[in-house]
Amino acid sequence: MSFQKNRVNVEIYGQQYTIVGDEATSHLRKVALSVDERMREIGQKNPGLDTTKLAVLTAVNAIHDYYKLLEKIEELELELNQEKK
Amino acid sequence: MSFQKNRVNVEIYGQQYTIVGDEATSHLRKVALSVDERMREIGQKNPGLDTTKLAVLTAVNAIHDYYKLLEKIEELELELNQEKK
Repeated sequence: MSFQKNRVNVEIYGQQYTIVGDEATSHLRKVALSVDERMREIGQKNPGLDTTKLAVLTAVNAIHDYYKLLEKIEELELELNQEKK
Repeated sequence: MSFQKNRVNVEIYGQQYTIVGDEATSHLRKVALSVDERMREIGQKNPGLDTTKLAVLTAVNAIHDYYKLLEKIEELELELNQEKK
C-alpha cells in the first residue's frame, strides 16, 4: 500500500499552483479547472475587483454551493430513512 | 412577494466584503465565516503564501469538498431508487 500523494501543476486565473491530494490527478485537474472557470465568471461580472477579492468571492460562492448540497443530502437521508421504515 | 435580495457586510481575512443573496442574512454570515475559517486554517499551514494564493487555495479546497458531496448525493440517489423498486 502506498501513501504517496498525487501532485499536479495547474494554472488558475493566470497563476501557477501545485495541487496535492489523494485523488487521481484527473480529479485534481477538474477541481482546479472549476475554480478557474468560476473566477473568470465572477471576474467578468465584477470587472473592478482585484484578484484577491475575486478569489475570496469565488470561495464564498463555492462554500455557498457546498451548503446547498449539504441540505440536499439531509433531505435525501430523511427520504431514505422513511422508505426503509 | 418581494424580490429584494439580502445584503450583509462581513469581514473575511481582515477585509470587508458585501455579500448579496436570496438567503437569510444568518446564512450569508455563516458562509462568510466558513470562508474566513478555512483561509485562516490554510494560512497557518502555509505561512509563506500571499493572500491571493491563499484565497485561491481556499476556493480549490471548497470545490474539492463540493465534489465529494456531489458523489455522496449520487450514491444516496442510487440507494433511494433501489429502495423504491
